[in-house]
Amino acid sequence: MKFTKMHGIGNDYLYFNCFEEPVTDPAALSIRLSDRHFGVGSDGIILIGPSDKADCSMDIYNADGSRAMMCGNGIRCVGKYAYERGIAKKKTLTVDTQSGVKTLFLTVDENDHVTSVTVNMGKPELSAPKIPTLFETEQVIDHPVEIAGKEYRVTCVSMGNPHCVVFVDDVDAIPLESIGPSFEFHHMFPQRVNTEFVQMIGENEMKMRVWERGSGETWACGTGACAVAVACALGGKTGRQVLVHLKGGDLNIRWDEESDEVFMQGPAEFVFDGQIN
Amino acid sequence: MKFTKMHGIGNDYLYFNCFEEPVTDPAALSIRLSDRHFGVGSDGIILIGPSDKADCSMDIYNADGSRAMMCGNGIRCVGKYAYERGIAKKKTLTVDTQSGVKTLFLTVDENDHVTSVTVNMGKPELSAPKIPTLFETEQVIDHPVEIAGKEYRVTCVSMGNPHCVVFVDDVDAIPLESIGPSFEFHHMFPQRVNTEFVQMIGENEMKMRVWERGSGETWACGTGACAVAVACALGGKTGRQVLVHLKGGDLNIRWDEESDEVFMQGPAEFVFDGQIN
Repeated sequence: MKFTKMHGIGNDYLYFNCFEEPVTDPAALSIRLSDRHFGVGSDGIILIGPSDKADCSMDIYNADGSRAMMCGNGIRCVGKYAYERGIAKKKTLTVDTQSGVKTLFLTVDENDHVTSVTVNMGKPELSAPKIPTLFETEQVIDHPVEIAGKEYRVTCVSMGNPHCVVFVDDVDAIPLESIGPSFEFHHMFPQRVNTEFVQMIGENEMKMRVWERGSGETWACGTGACAVAVACALGGKTGRQVLVHLKGGDLNIRWDEESDEVFMQGPAEFVFDGQIN
Repeated sequence: MKFTKMHGIGNDYLYFNCFEEPVTDPAALSIRLSDRHFGVGSDGIILIGPSDKADCSMDIYNADGSRAMMCGNGIRCVGKYAYERGIAKKKTLTVDTQSGVKTLFLTVDENDHVTSVTVNMGKPELSAPKIPTLFETEQVIDHPVEIAGKEYRVTCVSMGNPHCVVFVDDVDAIPLESIGPSFEFHHMFPQRVNTEFVQMIGENEMKMRVWERGSGETWACGTGACAVAVACALGGKTGRQVLVHLKGGDLNIRWDEESDEVFMQGPAEFVFDGQIN
């Protein structure tokens, strides 16, 4: 069985071309292959297959075998794979995901290589109960909350999953291993929460670290970077287009004023092609 | 460039067949490929090539690009690779390493697959200054020492690298992340030390966890398991043949009375074949 490892700013999956070869029992396969010592090693697997609604479909399984709705870093890799491996040689591509059909815009160089992919990540959800949070205000913008005995000011945004954005002076000094879980399991977040700690480092430019629910600190979180851009614009800290530095690399985020949609631009990379029995 | 990922009880390397294709700048290649998010992901790379002293040579580069002398889990995989991929179709194989020529004994099933490999790991060094340790006794067997404010009894053995073996009642309860470094950097070990915490679970059977100098807790350490077997026999806790359970799997160790050599038997597994540009 053939696969290709790709990553988007360090968020790495094994991609299977299901136009050529079907994958049976992907949950078990993902558990087996994702193990970083006994298996191939990855954050999960992504099946690229046919769709009657889009140029292709993507189906994501996490390393624990659970199914994911969408992944901003993963879908950029699907775009590069689909273009360069001949599934759909189009610079504007549609991908059918578990959270609907997403549109990608590819940047292609003179050698016909995809150098970056922009994804329409949809509209942010700001309604407190819909995020969901238990704050009693309509929206949660620069809102005080006590977490682990300390007062923080937080901005909450859903990008299909709940995010809590916190501005800090020095993001490297944050003891993420200890305070990440205090946010994740705080009683105000009934479905737990992803938390982004953000340090402004220039006009429309910031550095972030993310604590993902269920995963801990990760090198990259596409929806998290979108939530940060929305929180910055809402709080008047930046305009609507920002450059976000994550541990694994950089993303450009633009929150379109007219459509209310968030566009994320970033790289996608091939690592290697593999074959397992 | 082609490679094969293999592991020995979770200790995983990328193997390159240098009979077919030379590898230039292996240190840089190991750093790039070993990264578990941006690269292929491994503990390092191992080059298998020709030797005028043995059936083949092995050359090990760690994930940080440094060169290693020998690896007990790695050399078992070299044995399986050499046999099954036709480099040397022999059940007794010699491998030229940076610490001399080692002899392997292969167990092969009816399908001509190598199911386990026994390695002659050489003689243990028990002389305190040669290990090296700064203890003033000739050997360090069940010797008291205060580490991080607590008294332990330790047995020290070199298997080409220094080991400190500590018997405990419950190995799972050991806070390895905090006490591992206290052993590693203790002033009695001038070249630092690998520490094995060992719980007896039956006659000639024990469970161990290892803190490797420079790496922290690992799933498997072949020389560590050999040091544990030697320490057990020296302390009269077991005979000369033991079954050691490590986090990544099991190893059978036999300390031969006549030759003073330690033989380690364990599995070796193919994971996948890959290709990078």
